[in-house]
Parts: sequence; C-alpha cells; structure tokens
Amino acid sequence: MIRILFSAPDQRWADYRDTLPAALSRAGVIADIGRDFDPETVDFIVFAPNPGLTDFTPFTRCKAVLSLWAGVESIVTNATLTQPLTRMVDTGLTSGMVEWVTGHVLRHHLGIDAHIRGQDGVWRDHTVPPLARDRRVTVLGLGELGRACALMLCQLGFDVTGWSRNPRDIPGLRCLSGAAGLAQALDGADILVTLLPLTAQTTNLLGAAEFARMARGGVVINPGRGALIDDVALIAALDLGHLSQATLDVFRVEPLPPDHAFWQHPKVTVTPHIASATRADTAATQIAENIRRFEAGEPLLHLVNRQLGY
Amino acid sequence: MIRILFSAPDQRWADYRDTLPAALSRAGVIADIGRDFDPETVDFIVFAPNPGLTDFTPFTRCKAVLSLWAGVESIVTNATLTQPLTRMVDTGLTSGMVEWVTGHVLRHHLGIDAHIRGQDGVWRDHTVPPLARDRRVTVLGLGELGRACALMLCQLGFDVTGWSRNPRDIPGLRCLSGAAGLAQALDGADILVTLLPLTAQTTNLLGAAEFARMARGGVVINPGRGALIDDVALIAALDLGHLSQATLDVFRVEPLPPDHAFWQHPKVTVTPHIASATRADTAATQIAENIRRFEAGEPLLHLVNRQLGY
Repeated sequence: MIRILFSAPDQRWADYRDTLPAALSRAGVIADIGRDFDPETVDFIVFAPNPGLTDFTPFTRCKAVLSLWAGVESIVTNATLTQPLTRMVDTGLTSGMVEWVTGHVLRHHLGIDAHIRGQDGVWRDHTVPPLARDRRVTVLGLGELGRACALMLCQLGFDVTGWSRNPRDIPGLRCLSGAAGLAQALDGADILVTLLPLTAQTTNLLGAAEFARMARGGVVINPGRGALIDDVALIAALDLGHLSQATLDVFRVEPLPPDHAFWQHPKVTVTPHIASATRADTAATQIAENIRRFEAGEPLLHLVNRQLGY
Repeated sequence: MIRILFSAPDQRWADYRDTLPAALSRAGVIADIGRDFDPETVDFIVFAPNPGLTDFTPFTRCKAVLSLWAGVESIVTNATLTQPLTRMVDTGLTSGMVEWVTGHVLRHHLGIDAHIRGQDGVWRDHTVPPLARDRRVTVLGLGELGRACALMLCQLGFDVTGWSRNPRDIPGLRCLSGAAGLAQALDGADILVTLLPLTAQTTNLLGAAEFARMARGGVVINPGRGALIDDVALIAALDLGHLSQATLDVFRVEPLPPDHAFWQHPKVTVTPHIASATRADTAATQIAENIRRFEAGEPLLHLVNRQLGY
C-alpha cells in the first residue's frame, strides 16, 4: 500500500481530507493518507509550507514531493529536499486567478471605488471612463497564470503587452522579453499586473525606475509574490502621485502585519492572498494524477527545475 | 448641401462638434451641421432627448431622425415623429457596456467591496470566493448589448443563462424565452443583469415575485432602463435580506434625485448612467454611415420598429 504524508497547515487538511482520497480513488491509486507517519515509511509527501516539516532528510523512501502551491520558492532552496518536486498547476487556481485579475483590472479601469465610496447623491455623469482599448495593460510573467490573464484581458479589448524573461510566442498577444523588453513593456503602462515566479532574478524587480516608466496615474496589481516589488519604492511612487493605486494580494510577510504601511495607505488595497487560492477538488485531481504517473513509470507533470527555481 | 440639425443637450455638442464632421467627411458626405436651423430646411436630425425639441411637426423636409441613444422609448411614442427613426448601435457603446457589466459582475462575485471597505489590518484569508463556474448569472435581454455581455461572462466561466421575449439561438449560450422561460431563468440566479428595452411589456417586469425566485443573497445589476424594475419591491427584497446587493445605473428619473432612497441604501450602488455611454467617435461613424446610405438609396441600419418600440 502506498503511504502518502499530508504535510500542510491544519486548515488545508480540512480541504483535502475528503477530496484527496476521492481523487486517488478515481485515479485507481490505492493509498493510505495521513498526517503522522514514521518518516522512513512515507512514499509521497503532499506539501505546503509548515513549521512541522523543514528537514526532508528522514524521508529516505520518499519518491516525490508534491507541492500544493504554485510558488515553490520557499522549498526549492531546501538542501535536504533531494526528491523530485512538482508544483501545483491547478485549473481551478488558473480560473480563480483570471477572475481576480480581470475583476481588479476592470475595477481600476472603471473607477469603481469612486462609485462605491461616493454614494452622496451627486450625479457625476461626466465620469465615463475610456474604453479598454485605450488602456495599456502590461502583464509580467507568461506562465500558466500570466498567459491566461493576459488573453482574457485581450478578449475584453484592453491594449495588452505580455513580458517574460525568455521569449514567448503566444498567438493574439504582443509578447516582449529580456531586460530591454521589460523597459519597453513598462513604458506608458496604465495598469501593471505582476505574475512572475519569485527567483533571485525577480526579487525587487520593480523599483523606483520601473514605476517611473509607467503612465502617470498608473495602477499596480500584484497577485504574484510580495518580494517582486520594492515596497518602499511603491509607497513613494504612490505618495508622489505618479502611481494612483495599488492592489496587493501577496506580501513579504504573510499574514501582512496589522501595523504595515500598506494597510493604512489610502491608495493601497490589501487582499489576503486569495487570488491564487488552490481549489481542493481540482488540485487533488492533479496530485492523484502525479502519484498514478510515478507508480506507472510515466513522467511527472509540472516538475520543478531546481536551477530556474520554478 | 445636406443640412443636419444636431439636437441634443449642450454637453453632447462638445463630443460631436469635431467627430461628426470628420466621420461625414470619411463617409464622403458633404453636409452643413448645426444646432439652429429653420426647421423646414433640415434634412436629418441627430437626436438625444432635450427640452428644445419635442415637436417634430415643423421639420417638413426631414428624411430621418438618428438617435444618439440605444434606448428610444422616450421618442418612439412621439406622435409628431413620422420620419424613419434609427437607434444607436455603437460598437464603442457595446464595448463599454461589456466592460461595465463584466466589471460589476466580477466585483460582486469576488466580494471586492468588502476588501475596499475592510482595510483594517485583519487578514481574512478564509474569504476565497467560489469559482465563476459555480455562480449562476442570468442576463435578461439578448439584443446587441445583452448578447455581448452574456458571451463575455461565459468566457470568464460563469454559469450563464440568457433570456429574451422571443426565442434566440446563440451558439455557446443557454437561451430561454417567453414567460415560462423567464421564471426558469430567474430560479436560483445568483446575479441578474437586466438589459431589456423598455416597452409596455417590460415596464415593472421585475417585482417581488421575480426577486423571490433568485438565490438567497442574489445581486441585481441594472444597466438597462430604470423602469424595468419595481423600485419598492427591490428595496423590500434587499431589506428582507433575500437579495444582498444591487448596482443600478439607470433610473425612472435621471439624474436620480439626491433624496432618493437608492442613494442612502447601504446595499445599493448608484452609478450615473455611464454603463451605456455612447462614444462619440464610433457613434459619429454610424450616424455618417446612415446618412450616406439614405442618400445612396440604401436601407438604413438599426431602423426602429414602432410597434415593438425598439
């Protein structure tokens, strides 16, 4: 019998206690799933960062570690993890991200906040926003999530530019790459969406110089990783008035401490890392599929490249 | 020389003073455009409701009246208007409506208001919304605007039902029609979008019985016409808690009077008739094309059927 250790914060167990056995059963995998096994008896680890497991050394029989998260920067550098590591590419996560990104891009595009806050009886019918086609949106990162968001924003008519480190060719999308391409992608952007993986190259990628390239009144939307952005430079760009708003879902420290400047800043909207929530039903299906594949000698899906970090 | 009277509120003239001559020139129409001509010398009237023109009788030479608005209910019943009447089907208007409707559907779906208002330092990461595919959206009205909005919401993954008075077949969309179809379309709807023309049949179409069919916690979004909805019944459904929110862009009286209950209601968001704003550049192109057509003996686009009222 295959033994699967579920190593993640308590609240995640509530999501997967029923969905994971069901998905394994559908995949034809017979397994014993638990939260507390002798390490040397474990075949697979389903993992989300938690203080209970930081040393993978005792898991001598473990064949693969299956991350519940798309972003694996906190585990990929762990020297004790020598097994194959897969990242979550959840269709539910992609759908949720497209919905969150599209919703917040439209919110800023349409100026919805002013209507929500301005229910004061004054009829301001001169506030018709420009059309999406006259709004430049730049999406940094063209992996599963960035690509899906960029294409949906194209469907809505936005003037979209995508950027990634290495060149990509995505039908229907203007794609740029590399350092020169980044400058070009940022020049005059009205709305910036950051969906890059966090690596040594992308940490603090966006600072004062990058924000200065954006259009005056520009908006930053970050559902990727907190450390992509230089927090101090972002607040400065907002205070100077060069940027008008930022909506941030991810932070260097999560939960974002209650006394952090982002909570109090009138031009910042904090959301609690909900854009990229993995959905238990679709995620469990991917986990089960990868265990089935490994047992059948087939290649794992979404295997992490340790050099690249994602 | 063709003489075109521009009869609309002052603010509209600012939008069309340059765009309309440019569009006519592109269409090869040589014309004299003005706001004050002897009625018997006018060939065409470009029209938006205004107190200066309610009697069309003196316009004895007028060949057609070209509405700047999509909704023509305030003019179609004017007995003095005997000329052909066209309604505005502006590609910019359709784009703007799709953006507004999609933005507000996503806003309610994602619970964005709670984040905008709740910047209090409390990390509420249990607030992940369901996916769009688990949210039932019903669009009433499947003309140019309703159809375009419904199809975009399908693209985002929402569980969309469209309804129209007469049967429609729109690939990719579940379409219902007639009175029985209306009840079915409303049953269990989480989000209702009303984009029907205002006619004798649609006035007060949505009252207590219709709201009661919707899912508990349902949301009403009305960018169509104010009188589609029984205002008192809507407020009652919100006060009872059966409906959770309403976003209204159109009203029986516009501007909505400052003392109207909608402005004060905590569950109502008023926007000032901006969802369906005609865009001068694309609208001018349609007006010019219709004048060119009339002069060339070709059929007018978007001719209003006086019996149907749209």
